[in-house]
Amino acid sequence: MKLNSQQPLYLQIYEMIKQDIIENKYTKNEKLPSIRNLAKKLGVNNVTIVKTYDTLEKDLYVYKKRGSGVYVNNLNIRKNFLEEEIIMENFQYGRLEVNCKINFANSNPNGNYFPIKKFKDCINYVIDRDQEKIFAYEDPKGYIELRNTISKHLETEKIIVPPKYIQIISGAQQGIDLITKSLIHFGDKVIIENPSYSGAITSFKRGGAKVIDIPLLKDGIDLDILNNILIKEKISYLYLMTNFQNPTGISYSKKNKLKILALAKKYNFYIIEDDSSSDLYYKNKPFSLKSMDTNEKVIYIKSYSRIFMPGLRLGFLIAPKDKLKYISFTKYHTDISTPGLIQRAFEHYLNSPLWEIHTKKLRIIYKKKFEVAYNLLKKIDHLELFAIPQGGLYFWVKLENITSEALFLKALQKKVGILPGSIFKLNEKSEGWVRLCFADVEIEEIKKGLKILKESVEKLHKL
Amino acid sequence: MKLNSQQPLYLQIYEMIKQDIIENKYTKNEKLPSIRNLAKKLGVNNVTIVKTYDTLEKDLYVYKKRGSGVYVNNLNIRKNFLEEEIIMENFQYGRLEVNCKINFANSNPNGNYFPIKKFKDCINYVIDRDQEKIFAYEDPKGYIELRNTISKHLETEKIIVPPKYIQIISGAQQGIDLITKSLIHFGDKVIIENPSYSGAITSFKRGGAKVIDIPLLKDGIDLDILNNILIKEKISYLYLMTNFQNPTGISYSKKNKLKILALAKKYNFYIIEDDSSSDLYYKNKPFSLKSMDTNEKVIYIKSYSRIFMPGLRLGFLIAPKDKLKYISFTKYHTDISTPGLIQRAFEHYLNSPLWEIHTKKLRIIYKKKFEVAYNLLKKIDHLELFAIPQGGLYFWVKLENITSEALFLKALQKKVGILPGSIFKLNEKSEGWVRLCFADVEIEEIKKGLKILKESVEKLHKL
Repeated sequence: MKLNSQQPLYLQIYEMIKQDIIENKYTKNEKLPSIRNLAKKLGVNNVTIVKTYDTLEKDLYVYKKRGSGVYVNNLNIRKNFLEEEIIMENFQYGRLEVNCKINFANSNPNGNYFPIKKFKDCINYVIDRDQEKIFAYEDPKGYIELRNTISKHLETEKIIVPPKYIQIISGAQQGIDLITKSLIHFGDKVIIENPSYSGAITSFKRGGAKVIDIPLLKDGIDLDILNNILIKEKISYLYLMTNFQNPTGISYSKKNKLKILALAKKYNFYIIEDDSSSDLYYKNKPFSLKSMDTNEKVIYIKSYSRIFMPGLRLGFLIAPKDKLKYISFTKYHTDISTPGLIQRAFEHYLNSPLWEIHTKKLRIIYKKKFEVAYNLLKKIDHLELFAIPQGGLYFWVKLENITSEALFLKALQKKVGILPGSIFKLNEKSEGWVRLCFADVEIEEIKKGLKILKESVEKLHKL
Repeated sequence: MKLNSQQPLYLQIYEMIKQDIIENKYTKNEKLPSIRNLAKKLGVNNVTIVKTYDTLEKDLYVYKKRGSGVYVNNLNIRKNFLEEEIIMENFQYGRLEVNCKINFANSNPNGNYFPIKKFKDCINYVIDRDQEKIFAYEDPKGYIELRNTISKHLETEKIIVPPKYIQIISGAQQGIDLITKSLIHFGDKVIIENPSYSGAITSFKRGGAKVIDIPLLKDGIDLDILNNILIKEKISYLYLMTNFQNPTGISYSKKNKLKILALAKKYNFYIIEDDSSSDLYYKNKPFSLKSMDTNEKVIYIKSYSRIFMPGLRLGFLIAPKDKLKYISFTKYHTDISTPGLIQRAFEHYLNSPLWEIHTKKLRIIYKKKFEVAYNLLKKIDHLELFAIPQGGLYFWVKLENITSEALFLKALQKKVGILPGSIFKLNEKSEGWVRLCFADVEIEEIKKGLKILKESVEKLHKL
């Protein structure tokens, strides 16, 4: 131990212990040495250690139990870094960046589907139209004409919301970050689906929430379990992907959507509805929870990453008035505003027939891919689909007597990428589940890739 | 009080009290009613209240003092919303949006200085060059070629840093937000300058930091005060704007820069250097703290908002390796990445002679404006400049026997906007200080505007 003569001794010892707590060198609720023992070990007075422990307690790093001792508090809300680092290393920020030729892991749309030329025209049009306004600060809430256009589009989805309750965001992940920072208080309980989107899980946890997961059934989360939790505990938020969920591809039945809304009213919690895939329906356009939300219990997040182009980082959020003002304030303190250039060019695109043409084209492409993949997957033994998606980009697949990690590695040897299910789990490692995504693979690749997967499964199953 | 029969009584009461704590209906450390009194008031058993208080304690909303009672904890790290709302209402997210013709409040560069046509060319060039890559997800750390180009530029500023230690950010405010979320732990002590940038103050406070301010002198913060604090307390971060500070316009002397770096080493804290104005020197190019940082104690934030175009939301951050990995991870969980379109177009601009031409032009413009304004300000009685800036966009002005609010309102009647000093203060209301910024006013407006200010000051002084 290095002590210097400048700071009071008790503060130097305080700093050492605090650092160790922050760096997870203690476990939660671990007992610290007794005052006498630590004083002896460091060769200082008991009084010094008393002062050290008092300061640690005041700053909430430890708590005292009468007659028992001093224990490490569970307050280090960023302590889950270590665990996350491991995921980060393997999956480069949640995205699988490995050397694979056929990539069922990537959920970013294939660049071939981007309307590059048309969007370039929009960019040039709005620069000529708006000149320096394009590059000046934009309204933190978002470019007003974009909010107007979104408001009009939402009417066709039975969501009636004036532009002032719409907040433009730099993608769905930012929506989750803004909600976490502005609405979720330390210790608030947030329910998520099991499995769910890892970016949301991490955000809520790091924001200090207590995250609870509820298993997904084929038509939504298990409502019996939800009911039991609500009776016993105060829940603040429910984070759901109601249509073509990531990673399972399932959608909530209308009945379940209405039941959840009724529970939100009864138990006074809010639902964060993350709707990034509902434009990608194969047959029938689904409706959101938000469109049925008569009691203002839904905070709605929509991203344009899947249906348009992810690199634009664009989406919007709808929240009840009293919540939105905090969210907008937090948006300002997060990055001031989303770039005007991107908002204005996108508004021009969205407010033209181009939008309908583009989304229709994408739906046809994904439906075709779904059909090809589904028909091949059905024929692979020792694989079981959790559900048959009616839209979106995913299959959630159960492996019989094979771990997802084994299949992941086996497929990778043949340059085929998949995502192990553990990425989508809060707690338990999800043995035997994988997500297959067909966003970034063409029909011929799907055929080749699933053939390789079939062989890999068969080989592993024989082991 | 509305109780329903579904949840246990103790939980319903818990929820009520928790809500009141969150909404600041209690003050910090306020004593809650005794168990007996509250039970009597609500007509429930004592046991129920015991359970309520136990749960509140477990969730850290309250703490108990033996033999004394139950007190409200200081854990609601978002409690300063109310206070902030007032500022937000008056100053629309920190920017003054009032009906003024001559705007000394706005620190955004005038749109006339934007190189719109040239930048449009860059956009078209990179779209044609990179095609779909422009609109796909960008590396969360930032477009590699932009980091390369920045790294090369930094060499001329005596900052030697490889691209891998550079993180692209969506403006300085995002840099502050990322640092807060990834590095500042609950209860960490952060020192700021007095006066300082309100967006940083709010961010640190909302992140749970204990913010301490130290008065600024003409060559940096008061080092005697800093020394005294460091001897007594553990400080985690120091947030400084070392060149052409906002709002005072002062720069740290080289001597003081070196002293602060030595203190950072001795007391093991980090310096967050926010460098958004140093390109705007009138005569001599200043050097950053980062350029002298031999011990990796400086986290450096640079924004391109003032020197280029703020609506692009672009900047970068340099941090020591072990810190940067957390920051990059947090960037991913904040908004995945900064839009590739903007990064690539800007890289093309920055990596051409256009950059030098543009920045030189801006420096000439601002220097001229400074000279005109300075010569007029000198002649206004009852006004005193805190310092004579050597670069940047601001004057920090002391009013003699006039409150800043009075001058603010008086000037506004004549459609001249200024910023009251209280915006830049952590605690005390800053009577008699105002910031005058000449980013968004042309020479003729400066002349007219300062004439009106002179008249306003004279009138108020006679009252």
